[in-house]
Amino acid sequence: MMNGMSVIDLNADLGEEIGDDAAMLAVVTSANIACGFHAGNPTVLAATCRAAAANGVRIGAQVSYPDRSGFGRRFIDMAFDDLVADVVYQIGALSALAHAAGSAVTYVKPHGALYNTVVHHERQAAAVVEAVRSVDAGLAVMGLPGSQVLHDAAAAGLPTITEAFADRGYRPDGTLVARTEPGALVTDSTDVAARVVQMVTTGTVVAVDGSTIDVAAQSICLHGDTPGAVAHAHAVRRALADAGVEVRAPAQA
Amino acid sequence: MMNGMSVIDLNADLGEEIGDDAAMLAVVTSANIACGFHAGNPTVLAATCRAAAANGVRIGAQVSYPDRSGFGRRFIDMAFDDLVADVVYQIGALSALAHAAGSAVTYVKPHGALYNTVVHHERQAAAVVEAVRSVDAGLAVMGLPGSQVLHDAAAAGLPTITEAFADRGYRPDGTLVARTEPGALVTDSTDVAARVVQMVTTGTVVAVDGSTIDVAAQSICLHGDTPGAVAHAHAVRRALADAGVEVRAPAQA
Amino acid sequence: MMNGMSVIDLNADLGEEIGDDAAMLAVVTSANIACGFHAGNPTVLAATCRAAAANGVRIGAQVSYPDRSGFGRRFIDMAFDDLVADVVYQIGALSALAHAAGSAVTYVKPHGALYNTVVHHERQAAAVVEAVRSVDAGLAVMGLPGSQVLHDAAAAGLPTITEAFADRGYRPDGTLVARTEPGALVTDSTDVAARVVQMVTTGTVVAVDGSTIDVAAQSICLHGDTPGAVAHAHAVRRALADAGVEVRAPAQA
Amino acid sequence: MMNGMSVIDLNADLGEEIGDDAAMLAVVTSANIACGFHAGNPTVLAATCRAAAANGVRIGAQVSYPDRSGFGRRFIDMAFDDLVADVVYQIGALSALAHAAGSAVTYVKPHGALYNTVVHHERQAAAVVEAVRSVDAGLAVMGLPGSQVLHDAAAAGLPTITEAFADRGYRPDGTLVARTEPGALVTDSTDVAARVVQMVTTGTVVAVDGSTIDVAAQSICLHGDTPGAVAHAHAVRRALADAGVEVRAPAQA
Repeated sequence: MMNGMSVIDLNADLGEEIGDDAAMLAVVTSANIACGFHAGNPTVLAATCRAAAANGVRIGAQVSYPDRSGFGRRFIDMAFDDLVADVVYQIGALSALAHAAGSAVTYVKPHGALYNTVVHHERQAAAVVEAVRSVDAGLAVMGLPGSQVLHDAAAAGLPTITEAFADRGYRPDGTLVARTEPGALVTDSTDVAARVVQMVTTGTVVAVDGSTIDVAAQSICLHGDTPGAVAHAHAVRRALADAGVEVRAPAQA
Repeated sequence: MMNGMSVIDLNADLGEEIGDDAAMLAVVTSANIACGFHAGNPTVLAATCRAAAANGVRIGAQVSYPDRSGFGRRFIDMAFDDLVADVVYQIGALSALAHAAGSAVTYVKPHGALYNTVVHHERQAAAVVEAVRSVDAGLAVMGLPGSQVLHDAAAAGLPTITEAFADRGYRPDGTLVARTEPGALVTDSTDVAARVVQMVTTGTVVAVDGSTIDVAAQSICLHGDTPGAVAHAHAVRRALADAGVEVRAPAQA
Repeated sequence: MMNGMSVIDLNADLGEEIGDDAAMLAVVTSANIACGFHAGNPTVLAATCRAAAANGVRIGAQVSYPDRSGFGRRFIDMAFDDLVADVVYQIGALSALAHAAGSAVTYVKPHGALYNTVVHHERQAAAVVEAVRSVDAGLAVMGLPGSQVLHDAAAAGLPTITEAFADRGYRPDGTLVARTEPGALVTDSTDVAARVVQMVTTGTVVAVDGSTIDVAAQSICLHGDTPGAVAHAHAVRRALADAGVEVRAPAQA
Repeated sequence: MMNGMSVIDLNADLGEEIGDDAAMLAVVTSANIACGFHAGNPTVLAATCRAAAANGVRIGAQVSYPDRSGFGRRFIDMAFDDLVADVVYQIGALSALAHAAGSAVTYVKPHGALYNTVVHHERQAAAVVEAVRSVDAGLAVMGLPGSQVLHDAAAAGLPTITEAFADRGYRPDGTLVARTEPGALVTDSTDVAARVVQMVTTGTVVAVDGSTIDVAAQSICLHGDTPGAVAHAHAVRRALADAGVEVRAPAQA
């Protein structure tokens, strides 16, 4: 429950060679850094790890389907062993880059189509959890509240991080409005900031039908690649400061 | 110096989806496992790590230029930072797969054109050493005796592993006969085995001109992808046993 | 209808860097050559095109999902425009290599998961047909009799090529026995050859339940990568010769 | 010789997912479209071909080393046959996409490190020319005046297109100032435009040492990815119009 929270984590996707990473690193406290399977080459990822470390931003491995040409946005019907191996490979690669930068990967966040798939797909959710656990049982998994992958992670004894989205519309049942539908995106920085303050201080958000629903989240995702992303991010930081909310990553994971 | 050695390490390149990995794992004591940049996908590499672990064979990261279509056999004029990042990425990826298999990467061996380049190329040799050191200063570097990369590794305080080649012809100066020249490859299993025994027990080999030269090596490389590779490997093991030489990896990486 | 046919085309998948391409090219009359998305680099594909041309074997573009690490065997939920672009790209690339080899691509055969998907997936079947049509409306599409992709191809005015499988078990409804079930594969060369002769001369095959069913096919697919593939292929050629059936590709693509 | 020319072609690199392609397509008359080896996926390349066709801009295949992670900017020591196959593959892929867009590839321009290499590297220059010739002897090759690749192309009977660079500094010998040296880049739009007008109307440019040298060029390259690229491009178009120079691609090639 975030109701009455006075501390919140802000996360963003980085190392994807789109958006203004330097600007976002000045605002967020958690960096979901690509691992090369949907975006980013080792040089870019190494530089992003160094920049995150220099900004005191914790690093998460943003693992993806092996889908460079599709930016990881397309479901791939991967077998359990294949997905485990791909996720282990990515966590390991980014961990070494983070370590070389004087930091460490402390959590794992699935990207794009994999993120959406492990909300409900039992086999792939289990594969992601098995991969994380086999690399380091101290790594947290970041995902949607109520998702299969967070359920499995918790059952396996892994730390979990729930997140809410600063600029996405919510349906009355707590799921996100599809990007193809009206209300999918909140585009005004003031609105985005107000939503985040409400999420953090009351644990609720106004859904597309006008109803107020619960959104439990330990981290707020700020998109880095949308128009106005940096403006949104700064508005959110200011509004949280005005509301007396401290922005930082939790001590653990 | 191997003169009078009674223990030797045997290594082979594995996880490349060519050759008979299972047969080679029954013979060698060190597996140079590909990292996906010249060969191998995560599923194959994970399985190879598990097989190496099951056979008690230590694991090395066989790092390469990013050259899938050329099997890592072509020089790429990479900048220092790019090569460091690529090598760190590969070591990290394989380390996680090895860890998940209950083992660990204990050394790094450059592959193909990178192997040959870091014999003399100062900038790229330094990049490989910087990459290894930044991941884990306990990792050893395997390479050609007298090479720039082993010189730099030792200077940086990294363990080093020198190697000789079971089935390659040597020139009087201790370098290898180029593959395009006569005498590049020894093709008879009995000859290969006899050469290895001589290398290990006397520290010498007969060069293409008939002279006997020194070959200092802590490990012997058995090629896994040449015709008769498995037969060579078994002949070597038998001949070493007959000569009273124990085959095992050293206790430390 | 193949009932009473005295001419048949034999096809196999080539350029995949597995199996014995040279041996298969001496037997088949149509080469489904990989296009680099699931297997094959340009050097291998160029050499395969030259070998096919030298053997008088016609060339088809074996197009795939962009899934190198999965060998194209996994469904990818691709958008229409993405799949069209990927298939056009692959046909063009192989066409240029075939042209440089003094030959030409005359048909397109989807590979692996894409092959199975376009049997029934309307959107992806339409994308494949749109891609073929937009490159050259004279190109044929090879696929499973009764599949969505062949239906759409015919509706678009493209030539079509139906195929049957020499060594795969059939269900009473004319679909293939899944590879995970008993009876999926016929493993004896004599049996394989006899089945092909029956397919060609009577247009029928004995299904796994013992019933005799119709199999309409203008080409027979010989697998090149299964154990005994080359032996099967030679047995099929001999048996067809004994049965008085001529093996050749049709005059038109 | 451009001395007194009243017509000039303007070219830019497109389909690289950097820069403002739509803005550049409104200015240039030749689009060097990436082929997927250094940048661009088939979906992006298809869309770029359609946009070029819609703007009446002719299409060239911007072929590259297979070096996605290095954006094609690193020399690769490729064998002749490998480079021929890679270039044929790329020309074919883009030709099919261009054809599907209602246009066609009419010339080939090497990208990045390959561009610089074939200025002097005899073997790789010969490979590029052999690739172009084997696909279509009517395709032109675009490159640096006096380069090996243009010399070989002309000797092989291929059309050639010489180019000069709008915003690059020249040395007294007619070669470009290296990007790491002072004077490598002209950054003011007015200066860039004035240089182009001088190049086109007098066939000369002022070198970094203040001397006036000859620059023979049939096309002027406008960079699309530098700061101010679009502003430069518009300034060039205006200045050429004021000078009475018509901007269009030549009828042939």
